[in-house]
Amino acid sequence: MREASGNRPVVATTFYVRYAETDQMGIVHHSAYLVWFEEGRSQYMRACGADYAEIERSGALFAVAEAHARYEAPARYGERVTVRTWVEEVRSRAITFGYAVHNADTGERLATGWTKHVCLDRDGRVTVIPEIWRSLLAQGPRTDTFGDQEIRVEP
Amino acid sequence: MREASGNRPVVATTFYVRYAETDQMGIVHHSAYLVWFEEGRSQYMRACGADYAEIERSGALFAVAEAHARYEAPARYGERVTVRTWVEEVRSRAITFGYAVHNADTGERLATGWTKHVCLDRDGRVTVIPEIWRSLLAQGPRTDTFGDQEIRVEP
Amino acid sequence: MREASGNRPVVATTFYVRYAETDQMGIVHHSAYLVWFEEGRSQYMRACGADYAEIERSGALFAVAEAHARYEAPARYGERVTVRTWVEEVRSRAITFGYAVHNADTGERLATGWTKHVCLDRDGRVTVIPEIWRSLLAQGPRTDTFGDQEIRVEP
Amino acid sequence: MREASGNRPVVATTFYVRYAETDQMGIVHHSAYLVWFEEGRSQYMRACGADYAEIERSGALFAVAEAHARYEAPARYGERVTVRTWVEEVRSRAITFGYAVHNADTGERLATGWTKHVCLDRDGRVTVIPEIWRSLLAQGPRTDTFGDQEIRVEP
Repeated sequence: MREASGNRPVVATTFYVRYAETDQMGIVHHSAYLVWFEEGRSQYMRACGADYAEIERSGALFAVAEAHARYEAPARYGERVTVRTWVEEVRSRAITFGYAVHNADTGERLATGWTKHVCLDRDGRVTVIPEIWRSLLAQGPRTDTFGDQEIRVEP
Repeated sequence: MREASGNRPVVATTFYVRYAETDQMGIVHHSAYLVWFEEGRSQYMRACGADYAEIERSGALFAVAEAHARYEAPARYGERVTVRTWVEEVRSRAITFGYAVHNADTGERLATGWTKHVCLDRDGRVTVIPEIWRSLLAQGPRTDTFGDQEIRVEP
Repeated sequence: MREASGNRPVVATTFYVRYAETDQMGIVHHSAYLVWFEEGRSQYMRACGADYAEIERSGALFAVAEAHARYEAPARYGERVTVRTWVEEVRSRAITFGYAVHNADTGERLATGWTKHVCLDRDGRVTVIPEIWRSLLAQGPRTDTFGDQEIRVEP
Repeated sequence: MREASGNRPVVATTFYVRYAETDQMGIVHHSAYLVWFEEGRSQYMRACGADYAEIERSGALFAVAEAHARYEAPARYGERVTVRTWVEEVRSRAITFGYAVHNADTGERLATGWTKHVCLDRDGRVTVIPEIWRSLLAQGPRTDTFGDQEIRVEP
């Protein structure tokens, strides 16, 4: 099931909602959640020792092939939100991440989603995920604390 | 089927890719497509005589409940893209729009997607779409030209 | 004076305000104006035959060194705005553009600004603007109509 | 002088550069710095006990009247940046904030800037900054640590 993390390791990233992310409805614009998912994914990969900045420098690109978000409750400026990120599935040429966003203080769930990425080489051709990154991602985030981020296995 | 427009009226909106919409992969960031979908939706609603700015002023909000995008080919700065927008389904309290984005010059399809919206009142409660807007949207865009935008029924 | 165009040729670009550009104040977020200036600059350069996408492909980058904006009146979703762009100054290694944003329908002035750009080579070193682009920019926009954009010399 | 903080109290906010903030030049887009300034300003105000979310709820708006940024070196995805924020000047109806952005790890200065804000009431009229907020801002940030943010007086 896409919206639960099962017993997969989850990386939680917490930050303040930025004013620029709101719209005239008085709540966070729906496109900002894709940026939050990406920030959660970045932290997940750093926690695995597979920093995406390094992956790109090595010549592999994880292009977004599909994205989905379901919005349950609004986020507002001044609130802190937590993005939980996990790996749904790793294949030879593709990887799918799952996400859940909660209000960090009340615990209310605000949104869930997933993104599917295909691995491209520098010429834009679909290719296999290089073994070094694939095994680090398969291994998952290290369970010790990662800077000021929280990493844990959730039930 | 979500990614075809069937014989529903379609509103096509064409604009240049903005530099700020690109990322370091050299292509348009995937979150920009949600903004393009929204711009296509705005034009669709204007073509129906149901300008969303007026809908909000009247007290009804169409909050995004779900969004989906599938990316097929990259868009790049300097290219012109066309967003085609149609209504997938109108219910008493919800409306779903479908989208396809093409390169305006080559005709290549770049992405497809859909967004589901629920109607809220000013207090954030789910409510029925006011009859005036519902009937204008059900009626569809007027088939005469709409400013410099192109409106047509596609097979 | 930076905020007037003198008798320099001006390129006017008109578009709708996007919903995503608003914030919870109910008006367009101030950072969106830098994106609008950039879109005006892109159109100005296209009108000169110096498409910035081609300039980058040729190996020259116009990095932003300084940006300034003064906000006079708010822009709102559903309005059409016109960005007027001109060249303030061309030097061997730098170019400064000026901008004014008006409500396209009422004519009210919403903002003015300028951006200074330095020319970099692919290794990020400051370099002279290649002669071909420098002369096209010095020559200015062609006075015939440019697609659906309006080009004119303003008093 | 606008780009130094003198002996004013400074609030430092540190975060990762987001992928969506980059552009095809491979560096952070210049408009993102206005969003970072705003995030620095939000933290500064929280540290003063004058949370801007509360200020807006109380009926006062700090609309941006002018913004300026000078870019000295690029920021890149995967780097951590620190935004230092201070108050340049408080007047009865306006407040000016100053900013400096550094690479959090190397200490390199990336950009400086300032923004001027005027106080508006709910009807958009310029008004005096309510005394409660004015005195909290004049008093400055509390010198004890503020969550995981760093607050200090810099020489």
